[in-house]
Amino acid sequence: MPRRLESTPRSDGYHMPAEWERHDGCWMLWPQRRDTWRDGGKPAQRAFVEVASQIARFERVTMGVNRDQYENARAMLPPQVRVVELSNNDAWMRDMGATFVINEQGDLRGVDWRFNAWGGLDKRMYFPWDQDQLVATKMLEIEGIDRYAAPFILEGGSIHVDGEGTLLTTEQCLLHPNRNPQLSRAQIEQGLADYLGIRHIIWLPLGVYEDETDGHVDNICCFTRAGVVVMTWTDDRSDPQYARSAAAYEALMTARDAKGRRLEVQKIHQPAPMTMTPEEASGLDVVDSAFLRPEGERLAGSYINFYIANDAILMPIFGDRQDAAAAQTLAELFPQREIVQIQAREILLGGGNIHCITQQQPAGG
Amino acid sequence: MPRRLESTPRSDGYHMPAEWERHDGCWMLWPQRRDTWRDGGKPAQRAFVEVASQIARFERVTMGVNRDQYENARAMLPPQVRVVELSNNDAWMRDMGATFVINEQGDLRGVDWRFNAWGGLDKRMYFPWDQDQLVATKMLEIEGIDRYAAPFILEGGSIHVDGEGTLLTTEQCLLHPNRNPQLSRAQIEQGLADYLGIRHIIWLPLGVYEDETDGHVDNICCFTRAGVVVMTWTDDRSDPQYARSAAAYEALMTARDAKGRRLEVQKIHQPAPMTMTPEEASGLDVVDSAFLRPEGERLAGSYINFYIANDAILMPIFGDRQDAAAAQTLAELFPQREIVQIQAREILLGGGNIHCITQQQPAGG
Repeated sequence: MPRRLESTPRSDGYHMPAEWERHDGCWMLWPQRRDTWRDGGKPAQRAFVEVASQIARFERVTMGVNRDQYENARAMLPPQVRVVELSNNDAWMRDMGATFVINEQGDLRGVDWRFNAWGGLDKRMYFPWDQDQLVATKMLEIEGIDRYAAPFILEGGSIHVDGEGTLLTTEQCLLHPNRNPQLSRAQIEQGLADYLGIRHIIWLPLGVYEDETDGHVDNICCFTRAGVVVMTWTDDRSDPQYARSAAAYEALMTARDAKGRRLEVQKIHQPAPMTMTPEEASGLDVVDSAFLRPEGERLAGSYINFYIANDAILMPIFGDRQDAAAAQTLAELFPQREIVQIQAREILLGGGNIHCITQQQPAGG
Repeated sequence: MPRRLESTPRSDGYHMPAEWERHDGCWMLWPQRRDTWRDGGKPAQRAFVEVASQIARFERVTMGVNRDQYENARAMLPPQVRVVELSNNDAWMRDMGATFVINEQGDLRGVDWRFNAWGGLDKRMYFPWDQDQLVATKMLEIEGIDRYAAPFILEGGSIHVDGEGTLLTTEQCLLHPNRNPQLSRAQIEQGLADYLGIRHIIWLPLGVYEDETDGHVDNICCFTRAGVVVMTWTDDRSDPQYARSAAAYEALMTARDAKGRRLEVQKIHQPAPMTMTPEEASGLDVVDSAFLRPEGERLAGSYINFYIANDAILMPIFGDRQDAAAAQTLAELFPQREIVQIQAREILLGGGNIHCITQQQPAGG
């Protein structure tokens, strides 16, 4: 049933809906790399089980698993989570998975981006990433959904959309020479327009300090509804994050969206700076071909890396004194949704958070 | 969504429908073992592509593939065949796959049999079979269908049912000490009743000569509708198959089905005895832990190993002078269905045929 299409979503009348629009379900991948996840992946697996279990209260969840972890994942996950074989090199479904697009009739299709493990051979997170590259194809095959193969590199975490024609991203990531050096800014903008059906791009200069993704937008800022964004902030001018958040704020305050609206910009204060402990670092395999995660490394902690599920927000918390205020702000921004707080340090240790490990499948018509 | 159930299909009101009842689709697995399939699996892969392509004219087909063959299978198969990752040790979906059962409301569930590679450690076809054992679970997870885990060994090819309470099998296979030596005939009959919802068993003594499955019924005899069976036959009294077919015929002529009916028994003359050629045998890897397939070995060729699809019969042919008569008999037995003839020697070389590599998923209500 699934076909590979040679046209583009835009030419066929498809666009990426906003994350807050109704979902058919959520896709995740199971963590197991010993050089990303400490102690053989066990603490991260428990955190992923918590995320999947909580999302499954609100929508269907499918967990993709390598074959050597299939039985363990099936045993650790509750029965309402569907487990399927879906080979991968690591567990960042947001970045490896298909991005779903929809047309006015409610038909779904998938966009399969090229993937180079966040930077290719010069600055990769690991090698190889051959199985990651096939994740989007395989999830679309399981669902029987047609596929567009986009001819450039993109990770799902590097974009956010309002579903009304506006895309939010960072120059740090999308214009980085380790992604698509052969493409100009104008060509990248055209690619986003063609494959996501958007008409206007808001560029932020930088992502979160020490974010190993080269500044994915989904850790610094996202839409909460059309015309409203929320971003990570710090009042501490001595923190390297300050200038980054200030620059983002300035860009947002002067921006207009695709419909010509000015944006309402909400801030959430970041958690206090966190670093990897010696015990955490010593739980990782050291592998020459993978990104080194030494003790003392600053972790790119942010409350913005949440997932919008049907009727709920799944937000990371860190046992920080800012946790409560962050949850309060999200409750005000999403008054119709339950705010589910998840202790997420074990996900953050791997280099991302709840939004990075999830990918929504919109509800069809 | 999928659950593992601790009850039995019979106690829950489920039974296995006949193969000629409406299908939602067909499951297959992709051949790649170099010790089963000659020349690196390429000739068999072409034959499986032909089977899948032909079935896909009549019903949805899903092909399960190991990850190292995913891209090759996707490229060789037509787009209308769905390809999913489904790790396996070999490609006999009939024997490793789930057997579907249905209730009066049209709800589907799956039976997951124990599997020991046709004989366990003493007479296995290969070692290990760890991935085969998980095939049924995984296909049911993909579909979100609840699962019964049967507590005994059974391959789907060792049974046929009429959907009205009757099961057809062979003593050679189901009572073989390499399957369930701890169970008596009465206990096996109870297990079949509990997990397939059947009320009466017709036992044939033996399967086809030199059939390496220990005499699976699906190579010697099957129902074509309630009250009618078709079996493989030979007029050559010097052929070792003669006594086997004669014994089956005698058992069938004296049998009654679950509804008390006598059976109408149709015969199809077997193809002339075939053996593995030196060229074919030399295309196989020799592996100590796997079944040896030497040149000159008699192949268990039979026209009975066909698949009943929606509106079609997929039958094996061998370039034999009996091909046309076999097709004619099947056309008479299935007057409403198109008879699709498939050159199947490459499947037979692996030890089975079209019925062995397919598994129907009945249509739900």
